[in-house]
Amino acid sequence: MTKKIKWGIVGTGGIAHTFAKALAILPDAELVAVSSRKKESAEKFAAEFNIPNTYIGADSLARDKNIDIAYISSIHPAHKSDTLNCLNGGKAVLCEKPFAMNGLQAAQMIDCAAKNKLFLMEAMWTYFFPAIAEIRQIISNGDIGEVRLVNANFCFNKEDDPLGRLINPILGGGTLLDIGVYVIAFTQMIYGKEPEKISSLAHICSAGTDEQCSMIFAYNNGAMASLNCSFRVESPCQAAVYGTKGYIKVPHMFFQPDKFLIKIGDQPEKEHSFQRLGNGYTYQAVEVMRCLREGKLQSDIMPWDTSRAFMNTMDKIRQQWNLIYPCEK
Amino acid sequence: MTKKIKWGIVGTGGIAHTFAKALAILPDAELVAVSSRKKESAEKFAAEFNIPNTYIGADSLARDKNIDIAYISSIHPAHKSDTLNCLNGGKAVLCEKPFAMNGLQAAQMIDCAAKNKLFLMEAMWTYFFPAIAEIRQIISNGDIGEVRLVNANFCFNKEDDPLGRLINPILGGGTLLDIGVYVIAFTQMIYGKEPEKISSLAHICSAGTDEQCSMIFAYNNGAMASLNCSFRVESPCQAAVYGTKGYIKVPHMFFQPDKFLIKIGDQPEKEHSFQRLGNGYTYQAVEVMRCLREGKLQSDIMPWDTSRAFMNTMDKIRQQWNLIYPCEK
Repeated sequence: MTKKIKWGIVGTGGIAHTFAKALAILPDAELVAVSSRKKESAEKFAAEFNIPNTYIGADSLARDKNIDIAYISSIHPAHKSDTLNCLNGGKAVLCEKPFAMNGLQAAQMIDCAAKNKLFLMEAMWTYFFPAIAEIRQIISNGDIGEVRLVNANFCFNKEDDPLGRLINPILGGGTLLDIGVYVIAFTQMIYGKEPEKISSLAHICSAGTDEQCSMIFAYNNGAMASLNCSFRVESPCQAAVYGTKGYIKVPHMFFQPDKFLIKIGDQPEKEHSFQRLGNGYTYQAVEVMRCLREGKLQSDIMPWDTSRAFMNTMDKIRQQWNLIYPCEK
Repeated sequence: MTKKIKWGIVGTGGIAHTFAKALAILPDAELVAVSSRKKESAEKFAAEFNIPNTYIGADSLARDKNIDIAYISSIHPAHKSDTLNCLNGGKAVLCEKPFAMNGLQAAQMIDCAAKNKLFLMEAMWTYFFPAIAEIRQIISNGDIGEVRLVNANFCFNKEDDPLGRLINPILGGGTLLDIGVYVIAFTQMIYGKEPEKISSLAHICSAGTDEQCSMIFAYNNGAMASLNCSFRVESPCQAAVYGTKGYIKVPHMFFQPDKFLIKIGDQPEKEHSFQRLGNGYTYQAVEVMRCLREGKLQSDIMPWDTSRAFMNTMDKIRQQWNLIYPCEK
């Protein structure tokens, strides 16, 4: 039998629970440690998922000789230090989105992985769905012609809580870093490069972060993208890719799609549906473990340069809004 | 029986045909004259629709004592002079979109109508559909809460023809004036005012006009709009209005809708469908004739200030692209 990959989780929030459930259905994965800033949180989480070892902080988890890879699920501003701690402790790292607070932090994390010859990947789980793989194939086949417009919305409606992680600047709040990264990642996947021009507007809420934002990207060949994020309205989170010969539409939850619609020329819209493995976070875990077994430092699907590109784009957008986080000052 | 309203049509292009068909099913409308720059075009059009009088140019049509109202369907750069000719000839005017090439021209046309005490309206036919009336009602009832995001796409795929009216700058080509006016009109209808901030990008094609464009509007209360137009890709021309309590989506051809979907809170999406009267251009003709019979100079649904607002917004957007038409130089 394949030797199990041993995981440690840094952080015990909602996404940590979701990822722990994803690992639980993979026979070659074993969750062996969890760390939190609070002892009680780590112990509660460990009890829930039957995890043998608990730690306070990423640095102590990183010293656990038994762990192959750490999954960083802490708040955004902690991603850099938690990742550096784990890499410097000799652990491979899967780090939640946004990869970092800015491009500089991302570069430091990537440099650290390269220096330590350790695997590092941003947890952009969207990229690993079978529906997404097929969309990528269709685009590269040229079935919908040359892509000229990408639309994507990621909006949900959540009551304002100035102290909560969604909009609190100290916790890295704001739509762009939290959900904007998904519409940017989707667009980057389609065009394969950063936009040449960016135009954007945001509504900065009283907490000082972007409660809603819209962005336009333009590329030198005339292609464009139009993207929207909001914490104030509920939307089906649709994405669409319009080409000169047809279009692909992901009608619901484009960031974790089980189906898409495709229309080529005068043919009627056709639906492509997919079965889901577990809660969908499983796909990226499978890719990570494949990479580790093959001794790779980066995933070909979600390489370091792509994370760098997301952060560069988000840096440029925030510059247009003059939005600087306390941790950056 | 109600006395028939006697119409003259200026121009014999595609939209003139469509509007002549719309008038044909209205028992209180009579199409009595047509003008074109070419005698043969006017005569061919007159034969097709059984129109008794033909003219060369709007100025000669304007002298026909028998006409109550002129419908201006000429190319964009001719709207101002054709409208002024007809108004100064004592005729009410229904003028196709875009109302004019810029805000200055629009102001001149409106001033002329006011001075002559004659009815004038922009042919924004969208505003008169029953589905649109119901959407307006739902929004003003607050059923979907406070609106925070409007999305609208108007995209179709047409081969480049540098001399054709779509992209030829001499003919007022470009997406913004041709189809952008619809996404702007839809947004203006929802928010009832011009945006406080505009951010936009366009792909300017080799002919010198915008082959594709995207726009973001922002309002002081935090509401936004994200709008896209293209001559290079085909889209369902969807529009959506997202509020704090729910959303309305027009899934196809939002500018001439026969149905929309509404979702409030956790309830499932509900479809509202409508029967269409003729080809849909009929609705605005009915409104125009009602206004004429009531002696009004403006329609309450599509008043002068609204046309002014569309043109102001489009002027600001073109300024961001440095797009100036030959007729403006």
